[in-house]
Amino acid sequence: MQGYIDLVNSGLSELLYDVCDGQDYIVEAMNYSLSNGGKRIRPVLTLEFCRACGGNPEDALCLACAVEMIHTYSLIHDDLPCMDNDDFRRGKPSCHKAYGEEYALLAGDGLLTLAFETALKSKNIESGNLIEAVKTLANLAGVSGMVGGQVLDLQSENLSPSLEKLQTVDRLKTGALIKAAALLGCYASNRADEKMLAAAERYSECIGSAFQIVDDILDVTSTSEELGKPVGSDEKNNKMTYVALMGIKNSEKEAERLTDEAIAALECFADEGSFLKELALTLSKRKS
Amino acid sequence: MQGYIDLVNSGLSELLYDVCDGQDYIVEAMNYSLSNGGKRIRPVLTLEFCRACGGNPEDALCLACAVEMIHTYSLIHDDLPCMDNDDFRRGKPSCHKAYGEEYALLAGDGLLTLAFETALKSKNIESGNLIEAVKTLANLAGVSGMVGGQVLDLQSENLSPSLEKLQTVDRLKTGALIKAAALLGCYASNRADEKMLAAAERYSECIGSAFQIVDDILDVTSTSEELGKPVGSDEKNNKMTYVALMGIKNSEKEAERLTDEAIAALECFADEGSFLKELALTLSKRKS
Repeated sequence: MQGYIDLVNSGLSELLYDVCDGQDYIVEAMNYSLSNGGKRIRPVLTLEFCRACGGNPEDALCLACAVEMIHTYSLIHDDLPCMDNDDFRRGKPSCHKAYGEEYALLAGDGLLTLAFETALKSKNIESGNLIEAVKTLANLAGVSGMVGGQVLDLQSENLSPSLEKLQTVDRLKTGALIKAAALLGCYASNRADEKMLAAAERYSECIGSAFQIVDDILDVTSTSEELGKPVGSDEKNNKMTYVALMGIKNSEKEAERLTDEAIAALECFADEGSFLKELALTLSKRKS
Repeated sequence: MQGYIDLVNSGLSELLYDVCDGQDYIVEAMNYSLSNGGKRIRPVLTLEFCRACGGNPEDALCLACAVEMIHTYSLIHDDLPCMDNDDFRRGKPSCHKAYGEEYALLAGDGLLTLAFETALKSKNIESGNLIEAVKTLANLAGVSGMVGGQVLDLQSENLSPSLEKLQTVDRLKTGALIKAAALLGCYASNRADEKMLAAAERYSECIGSAFQIVDDILDVTSTSEELGKPVGSDEKNNKMTYVALMGIKNSEKEAERLTDEAIAALECFADEGSFLKELALTLSKRKS
């Protein structure tokens, strides 16, 4: 895991400073958010799915970094005053607090655009697979995926909460990009068959849903020291959560069921699925 | 010209409604801005450069629409309160006035992302050329190009005006995407040689610069009826313009010189360059 994270971190800063001549301020803003201590789950999924399909994970590095850039841009835009109006992100001032709203907007736009440039810089991926990968990324990051989830999230503020609505928002808002991360790794291997792509899809859907449920549980059961942010904020903000809709016990059971299902989906990878199995278990048992 | 514009307009709405199941509100916001009567200069350049290089313009349609989507997203984000705070765009309420700020932000994000999905849907373009085309688009739309120009534009508000600064901002903020439009057409033809690419680059740089200068001249010499927006707004907003820095006479001369240079750059296309020659002349003599 740490090897992958180091690879992603050095890839990200290299790819960022590569393009951006004479644009110190905006590049600093982009880098500020990119290096703000994320878990790097998405890029790790890309690298490891590439390896599990029989490819070289380094060939998937540009795609992995592209996914993380898109994740980061979405957080920057999500924190803006016209959206969630969050002054803090992971204990540090959010991008618009540190660099100004207009620059945060452009840092997000810049990261989203750089993600596609970066993805297309991939070496050793067959052209047809690379085109398919980047098209999948755009589809799952856009109105049919992540952006669409953000829209539904805004719209659901005025609707009565329901499990179905919550699942739809989560499937798009966070699930779509996690799915993209897994699928992109498969494409990067140049060796993924239909079975592997289906497995990556099912696995990523399940860990994506489990991840959201665990998030909601931790907001109730954790301490602010463990979590690194205030607990109980969901209830305070009247947020639609799994805990509010299903109770804690059922939420825990559902997260466990989804984790089991994710692991079962890895069957076609046999022994090569063990890292991904561990990852699913670690995410379900995390304390922050 | 009108044939191209019709092709682009029907392409845009088809490509937009293709992806966006169950997202009526945001798709409406995206379509509102996409169909707000732009001149479609960029997509027309893409289609015609494809033809001039010996290709079929219809093969370039997805790339042409992608460029126009990126142009449109940049206008939506540019109009936002944290940027230029413009309530109107081409005489109609700007996107955030019509749909709300949060939805305008996401409509812009959605269009930028859709542009890359659309570009990669291109048929009949060799994979290598398509990858090169979309990488070029991302590079010229991002921090090294258009987004970088918007950053420099913001930063120049606090600096003393100079011709050099103005030219740098314009070269990136509007010139980069016009250049992308021309180059993408060449790539789409599958037949462009180095000479044609260099010609497209020079032609688009020249008409891009001339376009800006004519804009500044019209703001002083036109009437609001002809222009369809208030005249004299540059001086009122204390904007750095060619007219303020060079005077009207020299601005007119420079626009003429750039138009001549654009036309001269078309030499390698021989007779196939005549539409592009007319386009350069039309743009330099336009009244709005």
